[in-house]
Amino acid sequence: MQSHEKYLNEAFDLAYQSVRNNIGGPFGAVVVMDGKIIGKGGNRVISQNDPTAHAEIVAIRVACRNISNFDLTGAVIYATCEPCPMCLSAIYWANIKEVYYCLTRYQAEAIGFRDNHIYEEMNLLPEERALAFHQVTHPEAAGLFREWMEKQDKMIY
Amino acid sequence: MQSHEKYLNEAFDLAYQSVRNNIGGPFGAVVVMDGKIIGKGGNRVISQNDPTAHAEIVAIRVACRNISNFDLTGAVIYATCEPCPMCLSAIYWANIKEVYYCLTRYQAEAIGFRDNHIYEEMNLLPEERALAFHQVTHPEAAGLFREWMEKQDKMIY
Repeated sequence: MQSHEKYLNEAFDLAYQSVRNNIGGPFGAVVVMDGKIIGKGGNRVISQNDPTAHAEIVAIRVACRNISNFDLTGAVIYATCEPCPMCLSAIYWANIKEVYYCLTRYQAEAIGFRDNHIYEEMNLLPEERALAFHQVTHPEAAGLFREWMEKQDKMIY
Repeated sequence: MQSHEKYLNEAFDLAYQSVRNNIGGPFGAVVVMDGKIIGKGGNRVISQNDPTAHAEIVAIRVACRNISNFDLTGAVIYATCEPCPMCLSAIYWANIKEVYYCLTRYQAEAIGFRDNHIYEEMNLLPEERALAFHQVTHPEAAGLFREWMEKQDKMIY
């Protein structure tokens, strides 16, 4: 329990830095492997003009760079707030299997963030979403996926 | 309709480049504003060791850098495949309101990608997910969000 607190202290420090230095929203995250912090970050949406620079995404990118691998199997992530669907999906793609968090999507909503709204949109059929979603045909569609299937030296992620 | 095809041609070219140069999976995306491509990218998960470097995320980041803004209101995104939940959420965070795509999450699943699995996990309650999700308390939790609420010069994203 004390180690959880240590990692969360770090995540909260990062979140406060983002707010106080106008770097981004009040969110921080830390990726830990074998008891060691391998990646960390605060939200940087504002300073980097990057809507994808959420704390968890930043921390995952840094961790992957540090271990030169897109696969973080065995790692744990600590986040000040419940990850939004973007960050939660990134956690799946990175093969992180355990998440510790403090604040919830509803608490984030109460201070003006859209995490909960986006969760609700995810569950809708494309035609029911606030966003217009158009499936169109393209002559290369089938060939592209066939080429991947048949590629002998492909790496799976 | 012809302009859709032009942008999708570009997205498919990017996807083929990712596959053939071992850069990443068979996915490409293009962000268009006022009829002009302002960001584009192929999947780069493998070459960049970055599980978040999906085509749509790459294209959104480039577009934001090009217009020096985290807000892409008015932009449209073209993607070779239905965006995964990470990319779809990034589209919401970027305020892109329109998506054109060709292949589906089910076709991606048939060639080994987890997009559909991750969509299914999004819909589950945290305690039902394949991933362990632990909410824990921290003495700074309430204070952090209060500080954001009370911050006078904050930017909303």
